[in-house]
Amino acid sequence: MFEAAQLGRKASKEEFEAQAPALQTALLQAQQAIRAAEIPVIVVVAGVEGSGKGEVVNRLHEWLDPRGLRTHAFWDHTDEEAMRPRHWRFWTRLPPRGMVGIMFGSWYTQPIIDRVFERATEAEYERELRRIEEFERLLTDDGALIVKLWFHLSKQEQKKRLQRDVEQGRMAHPLLKKFAKKYDRFVVHCERALRMTDTGHCPWTVVEAGNRRHRDLSVGRTLLQAMRERLERGAPASVSATAPASDSQPGLDTGEETSPRLTVLDRVELGQTLTVEEYEARQQSAQDRLGNLAWAARKRGINTVAVFEGWDAAGKGGAIRRVARAIDARLFQTISIAAPTDEERAHHYLWRFWRHVPRAGYMTIYDRSWYGRVLVERVEGFARTDEWRRAYQEINDFEEQLGEHGVVLMKFWLHVSPQEQLRRFEERAADPRKQHKLTPEDWRNRDKRRAYEEAVDDMVARTSTALAPWTLVAGDDKRFARVQVLETFVARLSEALGE
Amino acid sequence: MFEAAQLGRKASKEEFEAQAPALQTALLQAQQAIRAAEIPVIVVVAGVEGSGKGEVVNRLHEWLDPRGLRTHAFWDHTDEEAMRPRHWRFWTRLPPRGMVGIMFGSWYTQPIIDRVFERATEAEYERELRRIEEFERLLTDDGALIVKLWFHLSKQEQKKRLQRDVEQGRMAHPLLKKFAKKYDRFVVHCERALRMTDTGHCPWTVVEAGNRRHRDLSVGRTLLQAMRERLERGAPASVSATAPASDSQPGLDTGEETSPRLTVLDRVELGQTLTVEEYEARQQSAQDRLGNLAWAARKRGINTVAVFEGWDAAGKGGAIRRVARAIDARLFQTISIAAPTDEERAHHYLWRFWRHVPRAGYMTIYDRSWYGRVLVERVEGFARTDEWRRAYQEINDFEEQLGEHGVVLMKFWLHVSPQEQLRRFEERAADPRKQHKLTPEDWRNRDKRRAYEEAVDDMVARTSTALAPWTLVAGDDKRFARVQVLETFVARLSEALGE
Repeated sequence: MFEAAQLGRKASKEEFEAQAPALQTALLQAQQAIRAAEIPVIVVVAGVEGSGKGEVVNRLHEWLDPRGLRTHAFWDHTDEEAMRPRHWRFWTRLPPRGMVGIMFGSWYTQPIIDRVFERATEAEYERELRRIEEFERLLTDDGALIVKLWFHLSKQEQKKRLQRDVEQGRMAHPLLKKFAKKYDRFVVHCERALRMTDTGHCPWTVVEAGNRRHRDLSVGRTLLQAMRERLERGAPASVSATAPASDSQPGLDTGEETSPRLTVLDRVELGQTLTVEEYEARQQSAQDRLGNLAWAARKRGINTVAVFEGWDAAGKGGAIRRVARAIDARLFQTISIAAPTDEERAHHYLWRFWRHVPRAGYMTIYDRSWYGRVLVERVEGFARTDEWRRAYQEINDFEEQLGEHGVVLMKFWLHVSPQEQLRRFEERAADPRKQHKLTPEDWRNRDKRRAYEEAVDDMVARTSTALAPWTLVAGDDKRFARVQVLETFVARLSEALGE
Repeated sequence: MFEAAQLGRKASKEEFEAQAPALQTALLQAQQAIRAAEIPVIVVVAGVEGSGKGEVVNRLHEWLDPRGLRTHAFWDHTDEEAMRPRHWRFWTRLPPRGMVGIMFGSWYTQPIIDRVFERATEAEYERELRRIEEFERLLTDDGALIVKLWFHLSKQEQKKRLQRDVEQGRMAHPLLKKFAKKYDRFVVHCERALRMTDTGHCPWTVVEAGNRRHRDLSVGRTLLQAMRERLERGAPASVSATAPASDSQPGLDTGEETSPRLTVLDRVELGQTLTVEEYEARQQSAQDRLGNLAWAARKRGINTVAVFEGWDAAGKGGAIRRVARAIDARLFQTISIAAPTDEERAHHYLWRFWRHVPRAGYMTIYDRSWYGRVLVERVEGFARTDEWRRAYQEINDFEEQLGEHGVVLMKFWLHVSPQEQLRRFEERAADPRKQHKLTPEDWRNRDKRRAYEEAVDDMVARTSTALAPWTLVAGDDKRFARVQVLETFVARLSEALGE
């Protein structure tokens, strides 16, 4: 889930100074409206150590009206607290209606630490997270706005920060070093926490914390947008989504980013190519291996589900055919997802996918999938905002159930640059044997590339889990793309089979 | 949670025949409207073995239009199913929009059986229940109506039914006898299942199944009311409550019960009395014991929380004083809950109670409590319907957190008959030293007795858990009531201290 927060997003000093004043004015206005509307606002500040959470809190104190703001830090325990149920300390510090309460540390800290240091089992951990989900639901049901910010740093960045702090003789949290050593364990368990509590009514925003100015602008924008959306909904609301899906929202009428938002796709190295010889050798070797692995999986009763999404003309079909060719036809099926049938439309959107869940030992390849909900349905407005927002959790739950049943799940996004896509469209238009593959819709989708890129970014941020990670395929070179897909199949299946 | 379904409610043949035709007509009309509105309806039929779930399903087939109805029985597994994730079988059988699907057995059966026969740990069980909660939420978010019916029989009734079946040579479920032997374990784990999945948007209705005619009328009325409420809400709804809180709803314009609804209060034996001698002896002995137990609890760091609710003039104050007198004043505090302060009103309604959660080792007595939400706030309309409906689960979660922290939780409802209450009111009115205790509001509340009785019934049905059971105190005789309270204190504390 953190891929989307390792893009190296930055804001220059000039950008910051150009944007911050308008952002602050807008925040102050929103804060006043929140007070008038008597909405309690809870800002959860959590994330990796060293990401500057304290600086963010200071910044919010600078930007917001301090009379309507209270910060509570939860990092040491008092006797008073230890003598009462765990949530007592949070309940007693909730902001009253109209006020903003910053929870520095919050209800997530202790369960995560307990899990990382193995003081809690996975079952106990899940229980705590479930309790947190209920707690947050209870507050939002009551009309509260909860803005959850997760500050992320890569392992390298964290290390760098800590070293610099030491060199500059800065005081730090006494446990910081101990925590840093467990970075990888933290990531695994934090991902679980975010995944289980990333609900439609109370979503997480993962903020890339590598650059201080970018980080603070992101926080300001996220909070502003969340407050505005909450104000629009009015009255003690209950359901529907609230906060934005990513840390840099377009369309704010103030404090706007000057450059378009960076997405995970911008980090795909599209320049990668393979020569014909390399391609043929690696393809052959991967296909041979895959054929055997498919039989081994059948013998062991292991299901495989592969999902292919991607731009039009990115080469999904070609990649799927290369996989199919490697595997005995009795062992797999390919399912192409087009517009739903009448019968499918009469059910929940996940129903059509549950129908096709393969039996143990088989492989199913989806050419487009349940991700349509958060891609085409989102961009084209076929799904309401609250529908596609809660779909992330619904999809994660669905995939978790597949995973628990032992299904190996692979998800591919086939990426091509707009230039390469245009070249392929023109090629198709010129070739009578390929003209049928090009529709007016393809051209329309091309115009919406920006919106789709943001949808893909959110999708990867919210659904790329340890169990079911997304593979972003560099598709400008078809040979490279096909080999990348085949080798991913081989790697994931070998791992599942313990080979 | 099953106390409210062991009242011996009955419907005579005449009553049934008078009510059934109108009920059926209304059901058919509602079913047509459901079809036109394209709402999928899921009826979950679950409960104790021998309660006649099969008969209920047959009755629904008789009453509803079979063209819009499908029943799915989930009791044996196919190979096809075993090869896929557990929920596959449910997903593939969900009714399309506009249809009614009866789930006979449903997603609750297997987890409960696995837990009763110890094939699943408590943590695994909770995980399954959490998944069910999410599954149901996903469906209701998508606009579905889920009506969950739990059919209850007392242990004695179940035994009687099974014997009769054997005598009449009737065929039965092959595992029935095996299940019956585990009745008590079933009750414990079923209560857990109901408690964890009794949500505001998808509540359980516990149906008393001792009398067939009463049972079927209850089912018909519950289904009718749920469909009507769902239709009123219109559009792909998301949140807010749906189905009725109890199995016999007043105010239906057809198929109405002729006699007023029986409640748990009707089973309190108000005729019980104590002589002065008995009273003094038992009171003294209980008070002595309680004083020592309070010190022992302090030593062991065990918290005690006691909640007193009840009718006006039922003797709450007197009972509390008798408890207080027994205990060292340093060890307890009494908190009287009146109208909330401004500050309290600016928070979630549970906030004021979290504030006062006692430190380990102490005792807190609440004179009125968080149950105000589902009593006075419900009856007087101070809380919206969706607010008080979801409060049951919020309260259960709150009490569960207290329980996990080792708090001993006692809840008393002080019951008096309307006649005895009137006598006390008149006595107060006549006695200048007591006049201040009687307010015009007391008289107004008296007029709403019926509504309060139903609220108490729902409250006990939904919040009397193994961890925190309600004690219904027979209060017409003050001596009897005080001793009942004191002895309950002694019993619960001794148990908690393992004495």
